[in-house]
Amino acid sequence: MKLPVRRRDIRVAGFLFSGVACGLKDDGRKDVALIFAEEPAAAAGAFTTNRFAAPPVRVARERLRGGRLRAVLVNTKSANAGTGAPGLARARACCALAARLLGIAERRVVPCSTGKIGLPLSWSKMARGIRLAVAELSPRGLWDAAEAIRTTDAFPKVAAREISIGGRCVTVAGLAKGAGMIEPRMATTLCYVLTDAACEPALLRALLRDGLAGSFNAISVDGDTSTNDTALLLASGASGASAAAGSRAARTLGAAVGEVLGELARLIVADGEGASKVVRVAVRGARSRAEADAAARAVANSLLVKTAIHGADPNWGRIACALGYSGAVFRPDKTVIRIAGVEVSRAAQAAGKAAERRARRAMLGREFAIEIDLGAGAHAASVLTCDLGVDYVRFNSTYSS
Amino acid sequence: MKLPVRRRDIRVAGFLFSGVACGLKDDGRKDVALIFAEEPAAAAGAFTTNRFAAPPVRVARERLRGGRLRAVLVNTKSANAGTGAPGLARARACCALAARLLGIAERRVVPCSTGKIGLPLSWSKMARGIRLAVAELSPRGLWDAAEAIRTTDAFPKVAAREISIGGRCVTVAGLAKGAGMIEPRMATTLCYVLTDAACEPALLRALLRDGLAGSFNAISVDGDTSTNDTALLLASGASGASAAAGSRAARTLGAAVGEVLGELARLIVADGEGASKVVRVAVRGARSRAEADAAARAVANSLLVKTAIHGADPNWGRIACALGYSGAVFRPDKTVIRIAGVEVSRAAQAAGKAAERRARRAMLGREFAIEIDLGAGAHAASVLTCDLGVDYVRFNSTYSS
Repeated sequence: MKLPVRRRDIRVAGFLFSGVACGLKDDGRKDVALIFAEEPAAAAGAFTTNRFAAPPVRVARERLRGGRLRAVLVNTKSANAGTGAPGLARARACCALAARLLGIAERRVVPCSTGKIGLPLSWSKMARGIRLAVAELSPRGLWDAAEAIRTTDAFPKVAAREISIGGRCVTVAGLAKGAGMIEPRMATTLCYVLTDAACEPALLRALLRDGLAGSFNAISVDGDTSTNDTALLLASGASGASAAAGSRAARTLGAAVGEVLGELARLIVADGEGASKVVRVAVRGARSRAEADAAARAVANSLLVKTAIHGADPNWGRIACALGYSGAVFRPDKTVIRIAGVEVSRAAQAAGKAAERRARRAMLGREFAIEIDLGAGAHAASVLTCDLGVDYVRFNSTYSS
Repeated sequence: MKLPVRRRDIRVAGFLFSGVACGLKDDGRKDVALIFAEEPAAAAGAFTTNRFAAPPVRVARERLRGGRLRAVLVNTKSANAGTGAPGLARARACCALAARLLGIAERRVVPCSTGKIGLPLSWSKMARGIRLAVAELSPRGLWDAAEAIRTTDAFPKVAAREISIGGRCVTVAGLAKGAGMIEPRMATTLCYVLTDAACEPALLRALLRDGLAGSFNAISVDGDTSTNDTALLLASGASGASAAAGSRAARTLGAAVGEVLGELARLIVADGEGASKVVRVAVRGARSRAEADAAARAVANSLLVKTAIHGADPNWGRIACALGYSGAVFRPDKTVIRIAGVEVSRAAQAAGKAAERRARRAMLGREFAIEIDLGAGAHAASVLTCDLGVDYVRFNSTYSS
């Protein structure tokens, strides 16, 4: 069951949350979030494939190997990336302070940062933020945490599901941040999904991997894969329900995790900087899954396609052009392109003025699909993208993220 | 010697040119260009690698095999791409009419189109345009032809060199169009280079290939490789000078061809839609030429880097991020990033506030370099790019190209 996401509604048994302001953001908004597991929680993580992976990503990757976590400490404003050895030491020091205040082992605390690359993370502000965050921990703090991890996000991103496992009520809830520098590959800009089911780390890793494939790894705002992408899935077991690998419970849990990730991913695209439309680019008929993905990404990332979407222009020529340079192998005379349900091109030719008019009207909606059949095979892939508006450019040429 | 490019100055012996208006463009601007060789000219061509190659590209590719051409017929407004079999027949019919009026073999006429994809090319307008273009042919018509091949170009793009071969004066002159849908791979949006030297087609092909590698194949405006990219190099021999493969004359001619192509490529980037700055992204220290190229292209095409350039923001973090996801293999702690001559980052850390201020000032200029040393090997590559301004978005979301 999809849970309504309201300010204080969502609880996940076994977890406490907080989101506080310690002055990292200039405008007094919340900037440090803490997620605390009352008992060691099973944990799985996925991280950026960017070679300039930030120091906190390196620490988190290492600590995830243990498979159990107690706390996740997140800060905004500074990505603590491009900060070298001092940045690494700073990430560890923050975790150490949180561990001491929480009375837990430091190796069970994972750091995450998001914000500007190359900007050192202020120790004095973080020390204050960590103390505040520990003091504010509450079972009702998930929304506060979601607010605190925002950078340029227009709204907090939260999604939740309630499922039943073995007659017990289990919650799966997630929070994420998005906005810019977004084409996650293998993971995402910050995303945390929590459940009170009991679950082994190995199964959690599988659920996270499968869930990300169809959600965060299939969205693109601007084609820039960030240095700090991190997705974590934590299971407290506090609901009393447990899911073992291969069981029906695991499938139920996996479906809920996938839905929560999918909803968060959609919220991130909807909140792409300057974006006003969410568009699913769905490619089928490709020779391989990789070619389907390459074709979908080429269309989703084409500036000419994204600006055409912004202008509600059913410009299938720009879509065909992007398919043509995507690297996918196909014959143009076998392709079909549909925009918002209207067939606008077949066999590399226009469907006509009437179809164009209908597509133009349908493109005025806030959400639609671009469907492409390459006619070359049986493989499919889809990517969720957004339009490119002047505000993206205005924003990113004046804001130094 | 670099020739000044003025309205009626440039002649290339053995070639006649014209640029006329036949109503393809709504506003009465010139829209059809013709280049005519008085005797069969040796010819080499390079074409788009886009799978949606336009019908005229398919005809041109086939006719270039003969190695000799008499005429190049270019139209704007319709790319005659995404027009199927009727588009192919239309391209051939246009060439046939031009051939008949010029009294030459149809197989020696090459068609080129640029403009909107999926828009049929009007036969009645083209028939009128071809008649006018044949009637207007003149040795002084190169500038008119350059005007006629413009689409959204803010200015015509012409470059010329005068060289001496065997005591004879040889001219190498080129014209090109650019503006949007530009990341040529193997060739370019339309570009024609003409010389009055005598030269075998095989040597011309080598000169064109070498010249394009460092010019048109190393620029990017928006990362979109067009369906119609075409570059032609024609040699009339009318200067009386000849260049044989392997000779000093061939090297002199090759250098002039390279310079003309380089100048045209730079003009195209400078005239990128909405662009105000030309930036060379130069990568060295890569493990291979391919990785150097991938790294340079990732930086050159990153929306976050391009918007930062627009805002004169020395945001090396966005550059590092793009390098990190480019696919190139390197260690961040060995990298150095310089912007406009200022070292802004070393070993994945900031160089400091003073360097940032100096870089910011230098970025106010219209032309500068982003230099990256990956510290991983001995290979280098560079790409010429431009900034991304709000006008690119405004333009492409309202203009249906």
